Amino acid sequence: MILSALLTSVGINVGLCFLFFILYSILRNRPNNSELYIPRLVAEGEFQEADEVNARRLLPSFKWVKRAWQPSEDELMSNSGLDAVVFMRIFIFGLRVFRFAGIVGIFVLLPFNYMGNQLNIDFTDLPNKSLESFSISNVDDGSSRLWIHFCAVYVFTAVVCYLLYFEYDYIASKRIAHFYLSKPQPREFTVLVRSIPVTAGRSFSESVESFFSEFYPSTYLSHSVVRRTSKLKGLVSEADKVYKRLVHAKSKKYTQQRFKRAGFMGLFGKKIDLLDHYEKKLEDMEDNVRTERSSLAGKEVPAAFVSFKSRFSAAIASQLQQGLKPTEWITEQAPDPHDVYWPFFSASFMKRWMCNIAVFFSCIFITVVFLVPVFIVQGLTHLDQLEIWLPFLRGILKFKVISQVITGYLPSLILEMFLNVVPPVMIVLSSIQGYIALSQIEKSACIKVLWFTIWNIFFANVLSGSALYRIDVILEPKRIPELLAVAVPGQAAFFIAYVVTSGWTKTFSSILLRMKRLIWSLLKRRLGWKSDEEIEVPSNPYHKEIPRILFFSLLGITYFFLAPLILPFILVYYCLGYIIYRNQLLNVYAPKFETGGKFWPVVHDSTIFSLILMHIIAIGIFGLKKVPLASSLTIPLPILTLIFNSYCRRRFLPTFKGFPAECLINKDRLDQRDPTLSSFYDELTTAYRDPAMKPIRYSSTSESSTSPLLR
Amino acid sequence: MILSALLTSVGINVGLCFLFFILYSILRNRPNNSELYIPRLVAEGEFQEADEVNARRLLPSFKWVKRAWQPSEDELMSNSGLDAVVFMRIFIFGLRVFRFAGIVGIFVLLPFNYMGNQLNIDFTDLPNKSLESFSISNVDDGSSRLWIHFCAVYVFTAVVCYLLYFEYDYIASKRIAHFYLSKPQPREFTVLVRSIPVTAGRSFSESVESFFSEFYPSTYLSHSVVRRTSKLKGLVSEADKVYKRLVHAKSKKYTQQRFKRAGFMGLFGKKIDLLDHYEKKLEDMEDNVRTERSSLAGKEVPAAFVSFKSRFSAAIASQLQQGLKPTEWITEQAPDPHDVYWPFFSASFMKRWMCNIAVFFSCIFITVVFLVPVFIVQGLTHLDQLEIWLPFLRGILKFKVISQVITGYLPSLILEMFLNVVPPVMIVLSSIQGYIALSQIEKSACIKVLWFTIWNIFFANVLSGSALYRIDVILEPKRIPELLAVAVPGQAAFFIAYVVTSGWTKTFSSILLRMKRLIWSLLKRRLGWKSDEEIEVPSNPYHKEIPRILFFSLLGITYFFLAPLILPFILVYYCLGYIIYRNQLLNVYAPKFETGGKFWPVVHDSTIFSLILMHIIAIGIFGLKKVPLASSLTIPLPILTLIFNSYCRRRFLPTFKGFPAECLINKDRLDQRDPTLSSFYDELTTAYRDPAMKPIRYSSTSESSTSPLLR
Repeated sequence: MILSALLTSVGINVGLCFLFFILYSILRNRPNNSELYIPRLVAEGEFQEADEVNARRLLPSFKWVKRAWQPSEDELMSNSGLDAVVFMRIFIFGLRVFRFAGIVGIFVLLPFNYMGNQLNIDFTDLPNKSLESFSISNVDDGSSRLWIHFCAVYVFTAVVCYLLYFEYDYIASKRIAHFYLSKPQPREFTVLVRSIPVTAGRSFSESVESFFSEFYPSTYLSHSVVRRTSKLKGLVSEADKVYKRLVHAKSKKYTQQRFKRAGFMGLFGKKIDLLDHYEKKLEDMEDNVRTERSSLAGKEVPAAFVSFKSRFSAAIASQLQQGLKPTEWITEQAPDPHDVYWPFFSASFMKRWMCNIAVFFSCIFITVVFLVPVFIVQGLTHLDQLEIWLPFLRGILKFKVISQVITGYLPSLILEMFLNVVPPVMIVLSSIQGYIALSQIEKSACIKVLWFTIWNIFFANVLSGSALYRIDVILEPKRIPELLAVAVPGQAAFFIAYVVTSGWTKTFSSILLRMKRLIWSLLKRRLGWKSDEEIEVPSNPYHKEIPRILFFSLLGITYFFLAPLILPFILVYYCLGYIIYRNQLLNVYAPKFETGGKFWPVVHDSTIFSLILMHIIAIGIFGLKKVPLASSLTIPLPILTLIFNSYCRRRFLPTFKGFPAECLINKDRLDQRDPTLSSFYDELTTAYRDPAMKPIRYSSTSESSTSPLLR
Repeated sequence: MILSALLTSVGINVGLCFLFFILYSILRNRPNNSELYIPRLVAEGEFQEADEVNARRLLPSFKWVKRAWQPSEDELMSNSGLDAVVFMRIFIFGLRVFRFAGIVGIFVLLPFNYMGNQLNIDFTDLPNKSLESFSISNVDDGSSRLWIHFCAVYVFTAVVCYLLYFEYDYIASKRIAHFYLSKPQPREFTVLVRSIPVTAGRSFSESVESFFSEFYPSTYLSHSVVRRTSKLKGLVSEADKVYKRLVHAKSKKYTQQRFKRAGFMGLFGKKIDLLDHYEKKLEDMEDNVRTERSSLAGKEVPAAFVSFKSRFSAAIASQLQQGLKPTEWITEQAPDPHDVYWPFFSASFMKRWMCNIAVFFSCIFITVVFLVPVFIVQGLTHLDQLEIWLPFLRGILKFKVISQVITGYLPSLILEMFLNVVPPVMIVLSSIQGYIALSQIEKSACIKVLWFTIWNIFFANVLSGSALYRIDVILEPKRIPELLAVAVPGQAAFFIAYVVTSGWTKTFSSILLRMKRLIWSLLKRRLGWKSDEEIEVPSNPYHKEIPRILFFSLLGITYFFLAPLILPFILVYYCLGYIIYRNQLLNVYAPKFETGGKFWPVVHDSTIFSLILMHIIAIGIFGLKKVPLASSLTIPLPILTLIFNSYCRRRFLPTFKGFPAECLINKDRLDQRDPTLSSFYDELTTAYRDPAMKPIRYSSTSESSTSPLLR
């Protein structure tokens, strides 16, 4: 790609970003967009009149930037939880890393790259210059300038490792502090027991009761066995629908609207009063629900939530093997009651284990299948190939603008569209893997999406783009450094375009402006569809966002010494992201669960992987550039990095898995002075009831527009 | 290698084995060998007079075979502990596997191999026939007979997996039963705490006391902090030596022998009474020891043994993270008091972790360096090469017998000699890795020796022998199946010779006959050296024996379908081993520690590895033999095996790591009815004292020949 094509792409995107920015600043202040842009404030009733006054104006107001910038970390923590803080720490970490990388890259490495003569480019025609002249490819083979790159790699690794250590330490201490400050949570006192063995003549409930009251007589509090409620859930949701229709029918002003013919499509048969009809139906359904509930006793699933009187006992029960057989009485810490993912409880140990294996292979399959769109995209960046395949395009491609748009902008757009499908698929895969909490599913999906992104965006693009793509390269590890060294620098331009399109513009359009929702709500308003639904407050889709952010960090780290030109673009991305995500966390997203910062280890591991990948490429590049000594001297670097990582795992990871005995016992003792503890225990005994088992009260039909089931 | 060379080797070894067998049967009955062949019985005072009567005879007695055969597993367990039972289960498992393999191999696969025409060998001259004609190499390329091999591989894998599951299950249940039956052990109630943080103005002892009495007020019993005792140990052992000399001097009959000149080498200076001299010296030393002991309070090491009142509390303390920082207050289950390895306690978390890494790299280094003797050995099996290197040998090598001895017997003998050096080296490496129990060191060394053996005996021989040896093959995993398929079958003859030499003869000579010790004791007796030492009862060197036994199982499994000719030899090895090791366990070895069968997972993993290796070779072979369909259809087999292994790990491994809460609590409750519990608690408080800290009483010098320190 030449410089002017890149500039076209950057230009288009900067324009789009600016447009979106202005658009948001206008739209945000319009009151009928409040449900779209500040749903959280509206839901929490914090939507102030002062905003409404401003809202009449059509002039853009940029106050939101200041308001997103201002809150301190503690305010963010109390507002959106530790997970949000950890999420923002990714940006702070990224900014720190790429501030350093940018300074070194642009002011030290870039001039040396440009001064090289390897590619024999003349200095006069800057716009038509290949971007390669700014990359390491332009440095002469065997030049002693490569030692500057070598030093940069070492220094950069040291800086990143230092920052990683600092950040891990900081977040670990935040996590402990957050634990000490938080109120008693049901999850801390509760253990999920699975694979309860079948005992003849005893229900699972009795088994659990006798097992835990025998072995934990002083601290066992209560338990609730999970039941197979899929049928009940169907009935309840059906009843819910009928209830909504009933409310709707009641709200109609003219009574004639309430009558309808009973027959086919309401056209034939005798007229009936809809109100009576729905009320009768609802009563029948309530009866059904009641009979279904009473028959549930026999539908127990070998899983139960067991609550204890202290956090320490719960931790003991969850961390020690309970039963004789390691595949029975499997315990783990329970998630929060509203975080529980109910559908997959009935699965046995064997079934969950088989599902795990099946999911593993499905992931591989999806990753392989996804190569097809990647190849299509890569075809677009290589226009000459495309012309050969589809000769009728030759006429169109003659126009310079079109060809520049196609090579600069279209590939990453198409890739982005395909990539949108991946996170939901991974969520589905993770959810059949047998996790029992939404947060666990999201974390697992986050890791899956991350590796998928790295493999399918980075490796597939890099290797296919260089026409060297062969899936069997993973079978020849020795050739990997060389292969990557040949392929990676050539893709710098593509990835700069990717950062600009997928990083800048997408953050503005889909995160800040919530484009899809905006269009949908505009359509609804235009067509006059008014829904009675509650304001929907979304949660931050970590599994989608974290991999994206980390992927840019991977790009920045690997291209740091190859093509430093990418660094300013990534730095800008992190700056934009910092403000935009902060704004969304404060105004749009409500936390769905609280993992206590368990996403950070994913970020740490991904950064370590990026470093190692950079080292491998460096080994290859220095070899290719005929500085074998530098190549050999780089080999200790990945080893040292891995040693550093293994130390971090030992030093910090346990803190993210559970809490130490010291904390648990101290916190338990603090609680004992708390007078509300006994009422908390009462709540605890009913906290882990299946939502389908909660009482319904349609008969005392209230006029409120929300259904009691949604409460 | 041709058949006659193999037969020479087998002949020599059968002869040697028979000789050793007769020799043992004679020597065993001679009373002055009792310390050599039945030291355990002698030490336990079970050496019966009835044996002595027989002993006068010089005729061999084969009763020992019967006596080794008779005891049931429970008798063996009560006699030698669970580890010995598990050790014998390796033989039982091996016998079961190779009984099946032998029947299939010899009666199904071998005839088909022999009937092939691939190698174009004529059928008349059997003795000069290459052994290859019995191997899969002789089956015609693309022949449908290879499907028989294919089926055999599948069936054999299924049988081995079934046996593995059965055996794991059996041993896990034995382990639990053993736990229930055993008396209270100090290790069950005690936790080793390391990396105790430094608190200003407090000794480690006070820190431990306050930490555990704060967090475990009801169950904390006592603790003993480890102290830096290397200097004290030196003093005590010196005092011990002087004490021995004193006893020796006292035992001398003639008083003039007790006088010696004080000067250089006892030649100059005034005459002194040795008795007075030693007694004075001993008194000085005792003073030294006492002052050193009193100054020890300041030499505390940040490690302590903390004892609890119940097993369950100890398990909680050892399995939950205790302190805030995961690198402080690191707890683990304590080993038995006599199993503790004291020297390495002073190491900090960082130091131990660095040592671990250093040991890892040392192992790799040793493995690489060891290739030199392997190459020498391989030079011997390829005589033609040797003649080129050392032309002066040509004359000698013309004699058929010599060349047959050299190719058939010498290589494995030389290899064996070098291999003898490895286990002690690995023990040293494991001991600086920071393990705190002799049993852990031995287990870790066992794993190291096992992988060393597999790599250096199997892979190095296989790949160097085929002149295809390149260390960088590990960097090209795709070529591995093909490479192994080419190389492995060719080495069948070498490995048959290895089984016969290293398996049969070595088991007889070094295990049963204890050749080195025998020669040493003969020498001593001839030269009139009489030692006052106690009878030394050795323990079974698991780290040396288990890898050897498992290596034969690896050979058997990988060669099962390649060259079934090896199977009868391995079967004979397992039969011999079963009797000989049983005899040694009952008569010679005393258990040094009790791990409760923790060696079995090593056996399981090694067998799984052997199976996978066989599958990889099968994939390569079927590809080479132009049956690509069979090759592809073999690919699921290693995957299925790994899935089976992962199931086994989940199902059984936790039982080998610790005991479930159910067991611990039940056993604790049983104990509470035991009236001796309070006296056990008293013992517990002093059980984990450093041996150097135990009281010495030289002053009340007794005439007994054993030193009080050894008691």
